Formats: sequence, structure tokens, C-alpha cells
Amino acid sequence: MTYTNGKKVLQLSNCEAVYTSCPYLLRYLTGIDPENGCAIVDKTGTTLYTDLRYMEAAEKLLQGTEVTPVLYKQDELSQRLATYKTVGISFNETPHIEYLSLEKTGARFENIDEQLSKAMSVKNEWELACIQKACTLAEDGFLLLLPEIKEGMTEKEAAALLEYNMRKLGAQGLSFDTIVAFGAHAAVPHHETGDTKLAFGDEILIDFGCRVNGYCSDITRTFLFGDDKKHAEFKNAYEAVLAAHELVKEKLVSGMTGAEADAIARSYLTERGYGKLFTHSLGHGIGLNVHEAPYARPNGKDILTDGMVFSDEPGVYLKGEYGIRIEDTITLKEGRVHSFMSKTDRRLVIL
Amino acid sequence: MTYTNGKKVLQLSNCEAVYTSCPYLLRYLTGIDPENGCAIVDKTGTTLYTDLRYMEAAEKLLQGTEVTPVLYKQDELSQRLATYKTVGISFNETPHIEYLSLEKTGARFENIDEQLSKAMSVKNEWELACIQKACTLAEDGFLLLLPEIKEGMTEKEAAALLEYNMRKLGAQGLSFDTIVAFGAHAAVPHHETGDTKLAFGDEILIDFGCRVNGYCSDITRTFLFGDDKKHAEFKNAYEAVLAAHELVKEKLVSGMTGAEADAIARSYLTERGYGKLFTHSLGHGIGLNVHEAPYARPNGKDILTDGMVFSDEPGVYLKGEYGIRIEDTITLKEGRVHSFMSKTDRRLVIL
Repeated sequence: MTYTNGKKVLQLSNCEAVYTSCPYLLRYLTGIDPENGCAIVDKTGTTLYTDLRYMEAAEKLLQGTEVTPVLYKQDELSQRLATYKTVGISFNETPHIEYLSLEKTGARFENIDEQLSKAMSVKNEWELACIQKACTLAEDGFLLLLPEIKEGMTEKEAAALLEYNMRKLGAQGLSFDTIVAFGAHAAVPHHETGDTKLAFGDEILIDFGCRVNGYCSDITRTFLFGDDKKHAEFKNAYEAVLAAHELVKEKLVSGMTGAEADAIARSYLTERGYGKLFTHSLGHGIGLNVHEAPYARPNGKDILTDGMVFSDEPGVYLKGEYGIRIEDTITLKEGRVHSFMSKTDRRLVIL
Repeated sequence: MTYTNGKKVLQLSNCEAVYTSCPYLLRYLTGIDPENGCAIVDKTGTTLYTDLRYMEAAEKLLQGTEVTPVLYKQDELSQRLATYKTVGISFNETPHIEYLSLEKTGARFENIDEQLSKAMSVKNEWELACIQKACTLAEDGFLLLLPEIKEGMTEKEAAALLEYNMRKLGAQGLSFDTIVAFGAHAAVPHHETGDTKLAFGDEILIDFGCRVNGYCSDITRTFLFGDDKKHAEFKNAYEAVLAAHELVKEKLVSGMTGAEADAIARSYLTERGYGKLFTHSLGHGIGLNVHEAPYARPNGKDILTDGMVFSDEPGVYLKGEYGIRIEDTITLKEGRVHSFMSKTDRRLVIL
């Protein structure tokens, strides 16, 4: 793998160099994020400063890339920063205490948060492959969970088992704490997974994801644990959410704004009478952060282009009754939507 | 539970108010850390600013405490900050971009990192109970793992299973990514858990921990997967590390410096000929961060006092051969060491 991300950010920044010590930005610029590391990108390439503990591993991992690992020495780093007129940094991800010490080098530090966000929103082939793998592991983990779901199991137990499955299959961490909601808990989009036990006829909503080389997957499935014949309303709503989800995949094309993408699902759900119950936005970008640019929401101005990765996740929530969300991680390729999810059913599953 | 932490930090800070939006500091000052939340402590009490999604949960959790949850409004927050002459913040945990916007309120912001670190290093009863629970869950999870350890299992599989056990038992997250090292991998203190398979006669080193209400446990056990009779040297070193570990528990008393604590283990291991192989420090503070003050290391100036929580983890590492670390999370109570670990053997286990 070769990291052209450094060059890309440097060009966008209009600075002589780019500096960071933030773990996810380090990973973006160098492919790895050793503890206490930092990096400088300039026209000569990318230097990763790390300590002795990680040097051997870094040298091995970065062989053949444009990134050179170097032993960290505060003085040398400061002296090098002092040679630049302007250095781009993330004001969002630089602690104030670090800013104060950077300032002392005499270089001028400019905020490149917008440029970073823009660069990171469009993924290269290697990044897309990481996300694809993270999505496949999430789906495989979910498929291993389904036969283990039993009456009396708690939300926490189901979450623990799903996370174990993903980890066992090779995931390198979670995208976020798994949300498992049984019954009416599904009506709370940010439900905190708890000790509620599963009963026959309950709906189950699971929102989860895992990481590969730092890159996230994000997926939600809603299904029924047996059919107690009390789910007529739920099933109608499910069908509408699924249709909205699929409509986005069909109608969304590169060049649309986030607002236009959101409107595809929102106007359909509004027509079907569910507009007011779709209480969040259609989607968010996914990468080294599980929430990043671009945002597909009402008034969203981000232009959705090829190579961007984001969620397609319409949802309908009726307080105290039910909640439905169907979410895939998707990308745009040659102008059209391509989903990273292919193994799990989006149609209503009844266990 | 009542949060006297706010008052404690405010007093130490010598400021009119204390402000933070950093998740772990929020948790320290209010007991919870809703996404996008922030808090102000002043002489009237602690205010937690949060958004609608978390309001109901916050009200429930904070009932009867000195913390009042309030709906976040940028303007009101800025106006309130403007009424203070001096506001204490963590320069370490405030992003530079946030500092710039805080500055505009006209208040003077002072760095209280030292005061925060000092306050956080001494735990109250509720914090000690959280850490005790996190330690018990870690030990119970480990005891459930032992009978599942099988020849051919990978390091990653063992880590996934241990993490699943802790989660199933009620842990609310991990203290850090579990380190599982088979055979000579144990000689690398920061080994990255990989795909190596377990073979008969391998030593196993596992360094792990979990969280309860954000508070961490940290524990390491080293043991043998069968005895292939090639472990004479390993066993000698094990016995020395164990003796050093226990000596710390016996000799360490409140009022000693971190350096004096470290020296108890280091001088013993040096006497036994292992001094140069003890390549890290004796211990670090444990709380909402798995590494925080106080530090027990050569030249460590922190004074160890009652209520502090830290690790007792001497280790001996022979490159390419073996590594041994025996770690408990401990505290000082009425001047003497009390360990939170009581269920797992520190003596050498041979599976």
C-alpha cells in the first residue's frame, strides 16, 4: 500500500507543511497510529515520528511507502517545524496546550480542518477495500448471531455476542458501542443497550459496525423475534422504510447535494404518511470516523461525489411502540450507488 | 451517589468556575458523559449542558445529586461564561478551536491540568467501588477464559473470548485493547495481539481490563499452557517477579514517593540479577484513564497517599525467550496496600 493521502492534504492546505499528532489523522496520513506519534508532511514526503517501542513495527509496516519512520526527538521536531513559513494543522484535533508549544517554534500554524474533511471524505482504493472488509465482517458477525438469539437473552448479551463474532472473524475494534434494542426500546434512535430480556414477538433493532485498519462499517437491521400477530402497523412502516432505503440506492447519483439525497427518502416517507416519524437525517460519511463528512440531511450542502462513503439509513420511530431503521454503508461509483452490504437481508426477517 | 468532585476541583483551581466538554472530565465532574455535552462548576453547583436526546436519561441519573442537567444553548453558555473573571479549563483536553471560541466570551481561561490530575488521583468511595467492580469483572472474565484455552487457538481468539466474558458479566467497555502474547511474544511489553497459534508448553501473558461507569481495571497474569520441562529459567524469573510484586504490597506505605515504591521492586529484582530485564516502571495511576497520576517510577516525585489507585506490575523480559509481568490494581487504605484482585492466582498456574 502507498499513502498518497499526505500529498493530497498538503496540496489542499496551501501550506509548506502539514503536522499532526492526532491518532486518526496520523492513520490517515501514514496508515498507522503508534501511541505518542506525530507526523510531518512536506514536499519531500511524509515523516512519522515514533518512539523506540514502535520503531521496529513501523519500519516493517511502512516499507515501500512514501512514509519514513524516524525516532522522535522534541528538539529536532521543533527545529524542523521552525524551518517552515506556514504549517497546516487541525484546530479541532490539536489540544490547546500543544498549540501553545507549537507556536513557540515561530512557524505560522493555519487551520486546515476544512481541507482535511474534504480530503478524507473521498476514499482511495485501499480505503474502500478496508471499508468493504469491515462491512463484510459486520455482516458475517451478524449472520453468526442470528441462530444464537434466544428468548430471555438480554440486550447486553446479544451485543456482547455480536461483538465477539466480529472480533473472532478479524475485526480490529468496534466502530461504536453496539446498539441492541428490544421491543419499544427501538423507538429511541440512541437507545443505550441494557438488561431488558427478549420476549416472543419482540422486534429487535441492532445498529453496529467494526473496524479494519481504523476504517469503520456501519449497519442497522430491524427484525422480529417470532410473530405474535400484533405487528400489522410495524410491518406497514417496515415496508415503507425499506422502500425509502432502496429508493435512495436507485435514485441517488453523484453530483447531488446531501439535501437532495435526504429528500429522496424523506419525500417518499412523507407521501406514505411517515414524514414526521423520520426524526433524523438520511446519512453521514463513514471512514476513520464513524460520523464525518459528507452529511446527507435537510439543508445539507455537501456535494456527493464518486469515492465518498456514507450511510443510507432512513428510520421511522413511534414513541412507546416501535422503531425501524435499515442502514447500509454505501459509496458512489461511476455516478451510482454501490452498497458494501450484500450478505444480510434487508427484507423483514422473522426469526 | 453524590458528586463532590466538582467542588473539589473548583477549590483546587482557585478560579471562579471550571468548564469542560471533554468526555472523561465530564464524567469526573458529573458522573455521566452524554455526547456533545459540557459542564460548568461554580460555587452554586454543577450544571451539565446536554441536548434533547440525552435530557431524559440525564435527569433520571442525576436525581438527588448536586448536578443539574440543562438544555444546551450556545448563547446562554457563552453569556454565563462571560460573567466569570477566571474560568479553569484543561489545556490538555481543550481543542484549540474550542479555546478560540471560549476566549471570545471575555473571561480569562486558566490551565488547571495539574489541579485536575491531583484531584483525580485520589478516589472517593463511589469511585473506589466502581474500580473494585471493574477488577472483579476482569478476574471473573479471566476465570471463565482459562478452561476455554486450547491448543491451536490464536492470540486474537483468546482476547475476543476474554473481552466477551467481561462484557457478558456486565463490563461497560474495555480499559484498553487486550494484550494476549503466546511464547516469546511475551518478551515484548506492548505486544500487538496477533494470529499466532497456541502450542503445548507455551507461556501465555494476558494484560487486560474493563470499565464500570468509566472507571478502569488493569491486570496482567502470566502462566503456562502445559509444562514441556523447558521452563527452568522462566520459572526462576517468575518466582522473582512474584516476590517483587508481593514485596511492594508488603512494604509500600502511604507517604512514599513513586520513586520509593518503584525501588522496592527494582532493588529486589536487581539483587536477584534481573534488574536490567525490568525495562519499565512499577506502576501508573488508574481511574477514568488507564494511565494517569500517580506514577511509580524511578525519579517519580508523586507522593502516594490513601485513596490513590495504581498498578503494582513488576516485569522481567528476555528478548526472544520469555516475558513475565504480574499486575494487580491496588489502592492505599489506612496507610497500607489493599489489592482489588482476590480471585485469580498470582502463583504460577500451569494449565
